[in-house]
Amino acid sequence: MVTIFDELESNVRTYCRRFPAVFVRARGHVLWDQEGRSYIDFLSGAGALNYGHNHPAIKAALLDYLAADGPVHTMDLHTEAKADLLRGLDDIVLRPRGLAYRVQFTGPTGANAVEAALKVARRATGRTNVIAFTNGFHGMSLGALALAGNLGKRAASGVPLDRVTRLPYDGYLGQDVDTVDYLEKLLDDPGSGIDPPAAIVLETVQGEGGLNVARPQWLRRVEKVAHERGIVLIVDDIQAGCGRTGSFFSFEEAGLSPDIVCLAKSISGYGLPLALTLIRPDLDLLGPGEHSGTFRGHNLAFVTASAALGLWSSPQFTADLDKKCLLLAERVRGMTSGIERGRGLLRGLFFAEGAVAAEISLAAFRRGLLLETSGAASQVVKIMPPLTIDDDALHRGMDILDDSVQEVLSKRKAGTR
Amino acid sequence: MVTIFDELESNVRTYCRRFPAVFVRARGHVLWDQEGRSYIDFLSGAGALNYGHNHPAIKAALLDYLAADGPVHTMDLHTEAKADLLRGLDDIVLRPRGLAYRVQFTGPTGANAVEAALKVARRATGRTNVIAFTNGFHGMSLGALALAGNLGKRAASGVPLDRVTRLPYDGYLGQDVDTVDYLEKLLDDPGSGIDPPAAIVLETVQGEGGLNVARPQWLRRVEKVAHERGIVLIVDDIQAGCGRTGSFFSFEEAGLSPDIVCLAKSISGYGLPLALTLIRPDLDLLGPGEHSGTFRGHNLAFVTASAALGLWSSPQFTADLDKKCLLLAERVRGMTSGIERGRGLLRGLFFAEGAVAAEISLAAFRRGLLLETSGAASQVVKIMPPLTIDDDALHRGMDILDDSVQEVLSKRKAGTR
Amino acid sequence: MVTIFDELESNVRTYCRRFPAVFVRARGHVLWDQEGRSYIDFLSGAGALNYGHNHPAIKAALLDYLAADGPVHTMDLHTEAKADLLRGLDDIVLRPRGLAYRVQFTGPTGANAVEAALKVARRATGRTNVIAFTNGFHGMSLGALALAGNLGKRAASGVPLDRVTRLPYDGYLGQDVDTVDYLEKLLDDPGSGIDPPAAIVLETVQGEGGLNVARPQWLRRVEKVAHERGIVLIVDDIQAGCGRTGSFFSFEEAGLSPDIVCLAKSISGYGLPLALTLIRPDLDLLGPGEHSGTFRGHNLAFVTASAALGLWSSPQFTADLDKKCLLLAERVRGMTSGIERGRGLLRGLFFAEGAVAAEISLAAFRRGLLLETSGAASQVVKIMPPLTIDDDALHRGMDILDDSVQEVLSKRKAGTR
Amino acid sequence: MVTIFDELESNVRTYCRRFPAVFVRARGHVLWDQEGRSYIDFLSGAGALNYGHNHPAIKAALLDYLAADGPVHTMDLHTEAKADLLRGLDDIVLRPRGLAYRVQFTGPTGANAVEAALKVARRATGRTNVIAFTNGFHGMSLGALALAGNLGKRAASGVPLDRVTRLPYDGYLGQDVDTVDYLEKLLDDPGSGIDPPAAIVLETVQGEGGLNVARPQWLRRVEKVAHERGIVLIVDDIQAGCGRTGSFFSFEEAGLSPDIVCLAKSISGYGLPLALTLIRPDLDLLGPGEHSGTFRGHNLAFVTASAALGLWSSPQFTADLDKKCLLLAERVRGMTSGIERGRGLLRGLFFAEGAVAAEISLAAFRRGLLLETSGAASQVVKIMPPLTIDDDALHRGMDILDDSVQEVLSKRKAGTR
Repeated sequence: MVTIFDELESNVRTYCRRFPAVFVRARGHVLWDQEGRSYIDFLSGAGALNYGHNHPAIKAALLDYLAADGPVHTMDLHTEAKADLLRGLDDIVLRPRGLAYRVQFTGPTGANAVEAALKVARRATGRTNVIAFTNGFHGMSLGALALAGNLGKRAASGVPLDRVTRLPYDGYLGQDVDTVDYLEKLLDDPGSGIDPPAAIVLETVQGEGGLNVARPQWLRRVEKVAHERGIVLIVDDIQAGCGRTGSFFSFEEAGLSPDIVCLAKSISGYGLPLALTLIRPDLDLLGPGEHSGTFRGHNLAFVTASAALGLWSSPQFTADLDKKCLLLAERVRGMTSGIERGRGLLRGLFFAEGAVAAEISLAAFRRGLLLETSGAASQVVKIMPPLTIDDDALHRGMDILDDSVQEVLSKRKAGTR
Repeated sequence: MVTIFDELESNVRTYCRRFPAVFVRARGHVLWDQEGRSYIDFLSGAGALNYGHNHPAIKAALLDYLAADGPVHTMDLHTEAKADLLRGLDDIVLRPRGLAYRVQFTGPTGANAVEAALKVARRATGRTNVIAFTNGFHGMSLGALALAGNLGKRAASGVPLDRVTRLPYDGYLGQDVDTVDYLEKLLDDPGSGIDPPAAIVLETVQGEGGLNVARPQWLRRVEKVAHERGIVLIVDDIQAGCGRTGSFFSFEEAGLSPDIVCLAKSISGYGLPLALTLIRPDLDLLGPGEHSGTFRGHNLAFVTASAALGLWSSPQFTADLDKKCLLLAERVRGMTSGIERGRGLLRGLFFAEGAVAAEISLAAFRRGLLLETSGAASQVVKIMPPLTIDDDALHRGMDILDDSVQEVLSKRKAGTR
Repeated sequence: MVTIFDELESNVRTYCRRFPAVFVRARGHVLWDQEGRSYIDFLSGAGALNYGHNHPAIKAALLDYLAADGPVHTMDLHTEAKADLLRGLDDIVLRPRGLAYRVQFTGPTGANAVEAALKVARRATGRTNVIAFTNGFHGMSLGALALAGNLGKRAASGVPLDRVTRLPYDGYLGQDVDTVDYLEKLLDDPGSGIDPPAAIVLETVQGEGGLNVARPQWLRRVEKVAHERGIVLIVDDIQAGCGRTGSFFSFEEAGLSPDIVCLAKSISGYGLPLALTLIRPDLDLLGPGEHSGTFRGHNLAFVTASAALGLWSSPQFTADLDKKCLLLAERVRGMTSGIERGRGLLRGLFFAEGAVAAEISLAAFRRGLLLETSGAASQVVKIMPPLTIDDDALHRGMDILDDSVQEVLSKRKAGTR
Repeated sequence: MVTIFDELESNVRTYCRRFPAVFVRARGHVLWDQEGRSYIDFLSGAGALNYGHNHPAIKAALLDYLAADGPVHTMDLHTEAKADLLRGLDDIVLRPRGLAYRVQFTGPTGANAVEAALKVARRATGRTNVIAFTNGFHGMSLGALALAGNLGKRAASGVPLDRVTRLPYDGYLGQDVDTVDYLEKLLDDPGSGIDPPAAIVLETVQGEGGLNVARPQWLRRVEKVAHERGIVLIVDDIQAGCGRTGSFFSFEEAGLSPDIVCLAKSISGYGLPLALTLIRPDLDLLGPGEHSGTFRGHNLAFVTASAALGLWSSPQFTADLDKKCLLLAERVRGMTSGIERGRGLLRGLFFAEGAVAAEISLAAFRRGLLLETSGAASQVVKIMPPLTIDDDALHRGMDILDDSVQEVLSKRKAGTR
C-alpha cells in the first residue's frame, strides 16, 4: 500500500520515510499499524497530541456535537461551541493565572497564529522590523518563516526573507554570556544598524530548534527590555504550551505576561487544526476583516478544545502531570549517553553527530517506539510523550530508547575499530 | 450570549457583526440559531460547504472513523485514510480528466496551499517574481497575501509585500482589450522592467475580488504564454473548484492543464480544514521537510474528503449540478437590478455603491437568508448556495434576495426624494 | 596602449570596446585621438556635454577660479561659487519660467539626485511605493536602479529590486491607448493591488530607453492625476534637460510644474560631475545630514555651471538652439531608413534589429563620427550632437550617418542574397 | 550673503550650519573666508583632501591638462589620462605591495564604488545577503545605505533596507570579546538564521561611526573566516585609505589582501570626484554595461590622481607622514580629557555626551580651527588634518583644540555648580 504514496504523494513528505508503517488505529500513547504492530508514541504529533490519541472524554464531546448536527464550519459567526471555548479559556486558563487577553481565531495553523501576531505588533508600533532568535521556528508561511533559524527551511522559500533581526538565544554564546546584554546594547545604540523592532518573538523552549531552553531570568530580562522600549513581546507557545513543559503556558515558570501568545497544536486537544492568538486588550487593533481565513471557525475543534481545557480543572490532572515531568527528568538524567536538553515533557538528548540521532530514532522504531530528531542538524533525539501517558508506558518507552542508544553506540564503536 | 464575543473575541471578527445570531444547528442548506430561527445559507462557508452542512453520507463516514479510533492526527505518516483519499482523487477526479499530478498535503488552509505552490514554482524556475492579477485573492499569510489585489488586506500586513508583478485581469481594461497582449509584451520586452516570473497565479472566477470571470480564450492564451516561456501556471481553485462552477475544476470549461492547482475550502467536503497542492510530477522538486506543517495529516478531513469525492461518481450528482447551475443562471438573469457577475453556482450582483450591497445583505438576513458581499469595495452581493440545495430552496432563497433588493432600492429611492 | 586597459581595467567597460581609439584632445564637437584622427562627437558624453568639449567661456571661468586658489572641495560649507550658482539658477532659469524650487546639492551623479528625490517623496507622503515606466532609466545605485526598465541592468544588481510599480509609458500599448487611463484606474481601485505611491518618476524623452517621447497631453494628464492624489511628480531631466530638447527643461513644452526635478549631466556645462535635486519648497523636508555625500560641494562644477547658465542669458544662444533643432529634425526626417524617434537634439533612428544599429554605429566610427545605440535591445541609433555645434558640422555628421546607414543596409541586403 | 543659502538651498545642508562662514580661498591646511579670517582645516573634506587644498604639484598638472584641451568627460572611452592613472596605480601602489587588482571606474562617489563592489560580490557568489558591522558607514544610495549602522540615515530612506546581516564590530562587546567567534558560529550553524553571505564589508577604522579601530588580529581572522567560506571580503577604504592611517591602504598594518577594495575621497588628490573599485581579477565578472555611470570618465580627476600618486614615490613623503602620525598620536595622548580613538591621522576624542563634542567643535571654530564630530550620537571630536600639514600648524591646531576642550569643560563645570 506504500506504493500509492510513492506514486501520488509529493516528495516533500518526511516522517513516513523513516517510519514507513501504515497506521490504522490509535488510542492514548499507542498507534497500531496495518499489520497489527503497536508503537509507543513519543512524537505526540509534534506537540499536537498532548492528551494522547482519541482521548475518551474529548471524543465523547465530539461525537455528541456531530450527532446533534452542530454547525461544523461557520467562519467567524457566533456559535455556542465558540462561546463555550472562550468562556473555558477565560475561566480555566486566563483568569486563574491573572492574565487578560482577547482571543483572535486565526486560520487553524500555528503559522497563521504567528502571522496574525506579527500583524498586530506591526500595527501597534508602526514598525516593520522584528527580532527573532537563533534556532527559532515559528511556521512555514513567508511571514512566519522569516523568523526561522533553519537555513534549509528558509532557503526553500526561494525568496529573500527580510524584516527580521536575528539575535543569539539564551546560551547561544555559552552559559557565561547573557545575550540580553547584546540585545539591549543594539536597541539603545543609534549606530547599531538594528531598525527599531515592532516585536520580539521567542519560544521558551525551542521545540524544532534543538530543545534549547531559555532560563527564567533571561526571559524576564527580555520582557523587561521589550516593555521599557515599547516593543511587543510575542511568546510562541505553540509547541511548548498546553501543558507540555508542566504548566499550561510554558512561560509560567518565569512569571512572564507576554503581550501576545500564540497557541496551536494541542489547543484543540484532539489533533484537530486550531490556532489562537491571545492579544493584550489594548493591542487588539486590527479591524474587521484585516486578518481573515476560511477555517477560523472550526467548531469541532472548539468542542474538543473545551473538553481538553476541562481536564485542567481536575487537581488530579495537574498533580499527575507534575509527577510525569519528574519521572521523565529522572529517566533522561539517568541516560549514560547524550547531553540532556529541554524541560518538562519536552525533552531531548543531544548527540554531536546528526547521524547518531537518526540511527537511534530508527532503532527505536524497530523496537516499537516512535521518536523524532530535532535541530537544524538533527542532532537531538526528541522525547515527547503524551502528558497523559501512564508511568509504566513511559518507563517502557524510555527503556526502548535506552536500548536503542546502546545498540547504535555499540555498533558505531564496533564500526570504528 | 453575544456579550462573551464582545468581551473576549478580537475586533478582527467580521461576519458575526452583520449576522449577530448565535448558531446552534445546521443541516444541508439550513442553519438554525439559538432562538430557533432558520436561515437559508447562501454563504456556503465562503465556498467551504459546497455539499451543505453535515451531509449525511459524509457524516456517516466520519462517525465510523471516529468510532473505530482511527488515528486523527498523523503529520505525514502513512494512514489508510490518506491512501483512500489519494486513490479517490486519482480515480474519480484526475484520471478521468486526463490530468496527472502529485499531491502535496500542506497545512490545512488555502493560503498554505498557495504558499507551497509558490515555493515549488520558485524552485522549479530559480526565479523570485510572480505575476498576479488585479482583484485576485489567495490568502492572508505573507507569501499568499503579496498576491492580493485588496489594498486594505495588503496594508494590514504592516510590511511591504513584494516580488509580485500586478497585471490587469481579463476585462479589467474593458471587454475590448485583451490584457494578454500587455502580458505578452511585458514578458518579451527586455526594457519592460518586469522581472522574469516564476509563475502566473490566477483564479478563473475571482471569488473575493468581485466575481469577475475570465473568458476561456483568455485563460487559454495565458496558459500558452506561460508554457512558451517556462513560466509555471498556478490555478488557485480554492473557491471556484470542487464543483462550484459546475465542473469539478473551474478550468475544465477552458480546457486548461495547469502546472499547479491549489485546492482547499470544499475539498474536505464537510467544512473540515484541508488543503492540497496538485503539482505536475516533473515540478515536484521540494525535498523532505522543505514545506512542513503540523496539521498536514488531518485524517478526519481525509475521510470526509474521500466520502465527498464519492458523490462525484454518481451521474445523478453531476446531472443535478448542471440543472442547478442553469436554474441559478436563470434566476440571476431574471433580476431587474444589479449587474450579473460570476459563473456556475458562484454568482453575484454588482451595484455601483458598496452601501447598497451591504443593505441588501442585511435585509436578506432579516428575512432568513445569509449572503455576503464581495469585492474590494464590497459592491457585489454574492450568491453561493450549496451545490446540493434543492430547487425549491434555491427558489425561496432567490425570492428573498429579490425582495431584499426591491426593499433596499425602494427605500433608497424614497430617501433621495 | 590599449593593452593597459585590457590588463588593468574592469570588464565592465563598454564604449571603448566599440570605439577603441585613445583620445587626447577635445574642443567643441570634435575629439582627437592619439594618431591625430578627428571625430565629430554625436555622443555628447551621453548628454553631459551639451555645450561641447572645453567651451572657451566656461574654461576661462574655471581657469580663473583655479588660479585664484578658490576652494575646490567644501562639502556643504558656504562658498561664493555656490552662492553664484544658486543665484544664477534662480535668476536665469527658475524665476523667468515661473518656477520656485529649493536646491539640494546631492552627490555629483544623476543616480544620487534621483535617490535624493525618492527620499524626499517618501518622507513627504509616508509611503514607500513608487511608480516608474517601461523603458525608464534613472541610474545604477540600487534606489535608482529599482526604477529601471532594462532587465539586464536590474539583474546585474544581484538582489530583488522592489517598491516600484511598473506602468506602460506613453505609446507603449500603441498610439491609440492613453496609458493614463490605466494608471488612473489602478490608483482609484481599492482592489488593484497597487500600493498607493509616494511618487511618479518619469522622463519626458527616454534617453537610455530608446528615445521614446511622451506627448504633452499625456504628461499633463499624469501631472493632474498625481496632484489630485497627493502623489509627488518627479521629472528626471538628467538627460533631456539643460537644453537638450530645445528648452532648458524638457517639460516646458508641456507646461508642467513638477514637484521635484532631477538635474545632472550637463548642469555643470563642462563635463564635471554635478547633480542637483530641485524641490518644491514645501516638500523640502529632509533635515540636516539626512542625505549627505562627500562630493556635494564640488566648487569647480559650481563655477562651470554658473558660466554655462550664463550662456542662456544670450538671446542669440536660444535662437541658435531653435534653429539647430529644426535643422536636425529636417535631417532626421530626410533619412530614408529607420524610424524617427526623439525630440529636439535628442534624436534617434529605430531599426528592427539591434545588430543593424550596432553596425551603423561602427561604420560611422570608421568614418569619423561617434554615436551610440539606445534601448534595452539597442535598436536605436542615437543622435545627440552638442547644442553648440555649427550647422556645417551638423550636416557633415548627418551625412556620415546617412552614408553609414546606406553601407550597412546594402551589405546586409547583399549578405541575404 | 548667507541669505541666499537660507532661501534657496535645501534644509538637508549640515556643515554650514555649524560653520556659517563663506569660504573664498584655500591653500594647504588653510581656508579663508570672505572677511579675510583664516582657519586651520582639520576636516580635510571628510577625508577627501588628504593632500590639503590646492596642492601646487597637483594643481600644475591640472592646469596643464586644461590648457591643452585634454578631454574632460569621456565616459569609459580610452584616454591617455586614464592610462597614466592605471599605470601609476599599478606601479606605485599595487605591485610594490604585492597586490593585483582590476580597476573599475564607477560613478565618482564612494557610495557608487560600494554599490559596484556589492554587485561584483553578489555575481561572484550567487548570494544576496551581505554582512556589515555596527557603526559602519558606506554611503547614501540605497545599496550602500543598507550597510549603514546609523539609524537616522537609514530611516531617512523611507523604505526598508534589507539583505544585510548586522554583526558586532571589533570591540563592540568589550575588548575581551572576540566578535569573530560569533561571526564564525553564525556562519557554520545551519540553525543560525543568517543567510549565507556574498560578502563581508568593513572599514578598518570607522570614520563616520566614531573612529572605532579594528585590531589587526581581528581583521586577519575576519579575512580567514571569509576566505575559508567563499565569502568576498570588501574593505571600504574610502575614508581610511590614501594614506590617512599612515600607509596607502589602511589594511597594510594587518597585512590583508582584500578581494575588493573601495577607494574614493582622496584618490583624486585634489578634492575632485573620483571613485574606484579594485577587484581581484578572477572576481571581475560584471560584463560590459552592467554597471555604467555618466561621470565614470572624469579625466581631470584622473590627472590629479596621477599627480597625487606621484607624491608617494618620494621617500621623503612617507617619512614625513610617519612622523606626522607619531606627532599627532603624542598630542592626542597628551589631551587631559576625552577618550582617545582612531589611528594614524584619523583620530578622535570621545566624550560621553554628544553636546560636549558639539560645543568643542564650535569653540574651535571661533578660534580658527575647523573640526567635526563623528559617531551616531556625535560623541567624538574628529581630528583629521591634511597629511601634508607642517608640524607647526599641527601643533597650533592641537593647541586650539586643547584650549577649546578646556573652555567647554570649564563652562560646563561652572554651569553645574
